[in-house]
Amino acid sequence: MSPHEVVVPEGLAEPRGFNHAVVSRGGRTVWLAGQTALDRDGAVVAPGDVVAQFETALGNLLASLRAAGGEPLHLVTLTTYIVDMEDYRAHARDIGGVWKRLVGSYYPAMAGIGVARLWDAEALVEVQGVAVVPD
Amino acid sequence: MSPHEVVVPEGLAEPRGFNHAVVSRGGRTVWLAGQTALDRDGAVVAPGDVVAQFETALGNLLASLRAAGGEPLHLVTLTTYIVDMEDYRAHARDIGGVWKRLVGSYYPAMAGIGVARLWDAEALVEVQGVAVVPD
Amino acid sequence: MSPHEVVVPEGLAEPRGFNHAVVSRGGRTVWLAGQTALDRDGAVVAPGDVVAQFETALGNLLASLRAAGGEPLHLVTLTTYIVDMEDYRAHARDIGGVWKRLVGSYYPAMAGIGVARLWDAEALVEVQGVAVVPD
Repeated sequence: MSPHEVVVPEGLAEPRGFNHAVVSRGGRTVWLAGQTALDRDGAVVAPGDVVAQFETALGNLLASLRAAGGEPLHLVTLTTYIVDMEDYRAHARDIGGVWKRLVGSYYPAMAGIGVARLWDAEALVEVQGVAVVPD
Repeated sequence: MSPHEVVVPEGLAEPRGFNHAVVSRGGRTVWLAGQTALDRDGAVVAPGDVVAQFETALGNLLASLRAAGGEPLHLVTLTTYIVDMEDYRAHARDIGGVWKRLVGSYYPAMAGIGVARLWDAEALVEVQGVAVVPD
Repeated sequence: MSPHEVVVPEGLAEPRGFNHAVVSRGGRTVWLAGQTALDRDGAVVAPGDVVAQFETALGNLLASLRAAGGEPLHLVTLTTYIVDMEDYRAHARDIGGVWKRLVGSYYPAMAGIGVARLWDAEALVEVQGVAVVPD
């Protein structure tokens, strides 16, 4: 269970796959770089496969978080930058499955933004976030 | 009045409708999801009307903030993702009026970014931010 | 030297010109507006020159940070929004040189996102970030 307070506002659409607000206090704040589906040699994996790229990108972000002493449940916010929104939404169920496998049923405050492109032309998705690790 | 310190740097263009830097310390940090103009059933309201969509999106964000125990003056940063920048700027005065009505004369640190699209194809604007609520 | 903890995760590509994670604790948090290459009259400088625009934009961000009592080494995260990624990458060496001159060899957690456009049609690059200033 996340140590952070998940807020469920009345009157807003029920959040599916994210939360509207998460509250943290104190602790160590882990500021995470944007991660795409790069392997350890810096090459984009799985060209054209947004589900596999999401899994690698999120895995890279979580590896950074763990190296900082945190866990997935410590995430407070996550922004997903998406090159092809139609393709991403068409695979939303599988992407949600990756999330459940790597993080679980906890969701931080999130945004999914359709962008023009990412650093590498082959990159389809980037995740960037912040975690707060309790003392 | 906001409890946060608003910084006005010398040598920079005078900020209109935002602030260059806002300083917070301690308290509870409220991480807010990106909000578009969704009604409580998850449908985009006011297709084609960027002013009405901004009002609903900002209202959703402020509802989330209030549900977390915060107030508009607790916002420290806000990013606005804009699908059609020319249209948005053409309505900047009315959008500024919505801000004054919902928040007042206080502005957090802000950025307005032109994006390819948002989650829903009909969504014209999304707001995402962070608030710090003093103890 | 930055007061913040820089995290180097195993198994990820070596970061060049950024860090995968930076950890802060306590202090004052400086939330910085997105900055483009505006002069003090609000005009975009150096049309078409992404290196000069990056220098002015980063300079504006650092001026805001300094006005808030912080230093470049206090940055914890920085997002760069880029209108023409190919052009930006073609000048990556010179842009890196600007960074070294204005900030040094320290890098926060970063992301570089290709966007549709920025507030001003002539703006090529925008930087937005957060700094934590120790007590």
